[in-house]
Amino acid sequence: MKKDVLDEKVIGIEENFRNASWRIKLKGREILGDFDITPPQFNALYMLTCDDGNMTIGELSSKMYLACSTVTDLLDRMERNQLVARVKDEKDRRVVRIKVLEKGHNMIEDVLENRRKYIAETLDGLSDDMIDSVFEVMKMLNEKMSI
Amino acid sequence: MKKDVLDEKVIGIEENFRNASWRIKLKGREILGDFDITPPQFNALYMLTCDDGNMTIGELSSKMYLACSTVTDLLDRMERNQLVARVKDEKDRRVVRIKVLEKGHNMIEDVLENRRKYIAETLDGLSDDMIDSVFEVMKMLNEKMSI
Repeated sequence: MKKDVLDEKVIGIEENFRNASWRIKLKGREILGDFDITPPQFNALYMLTCDDGNMTIGELSSKMYLACSTVTDLLDRMERNQLVARVKDEKDRRVVRIKVLEKGHNMIEDVLENRRKYIAETLDGLSDDMIDSVFEVMKMLNEKMSI
Repeated sequence: MKKDVLDEKVIGIEENFRNASWRIKLKGREILGDFDITPPQFNALYMLTCDDGNMTIGELSSKMYLACSTVTDLLDRMERNQLVARVKDEKDRRVVRIKVLEKGHNMIEDVLENRRKYIAETLDGLSDDMIDSVFEVMKMLNEKMSI
């Protein structure tokens, strides 16, 4: 492929990827309003889930690049909403870790399910070959990016 | 395609899409450290660019779901870094709008360029047909999602 043709393709891939990713994200989060949780709270919840409940407020603040006071405020509301709990570290009782509660895990799963539903709707009406193509392309990209 | 096979494909597409999107995002933003700008500041900058410099602090705060005081603090640092400027509205001098400066626009373009570079590296070594496939899949998804 000629360099200028490849450059055009890359520009198109980046732009379409960014837009599609944005739409999936918005669709997935459409349900958050029903649960009285804001996007920054959801971001915090998602980061905490990935880390499996071992983060301190300081660690979460630096991951979110927000002031500790802002994150403390987010967590206060999330704790009142029973999404997370502050738990004392078993080895060092002075350290407080944030644990994601069942309601929090369910919320993450609901958002993922909403993303899947939207993708399924998008694929609706496509041929089996085209659906396979989407699957293979996404798998290949992710595998090549994981190296 | 049988429903259970389709469901499996959708789960795979969602997961691979989410992971690839995350990697592209991180790669694109790798350069931000060199510019002394944090991810929340970059998010603000990106939102302001999309809106073409007409947002007030209140509007930006509600778009970011952060307190006005947090956003004011972000903007103070961004203004000192000459990424944005507070400008009085021409029609109503009491209203202050946030304008993205040349350095801010250049930064967004640099991040997009870094994302493209990463995608080009990921596609390196693939056949022309496979690159076309990636392009067509991403274009189709974005088009179907834009309806």
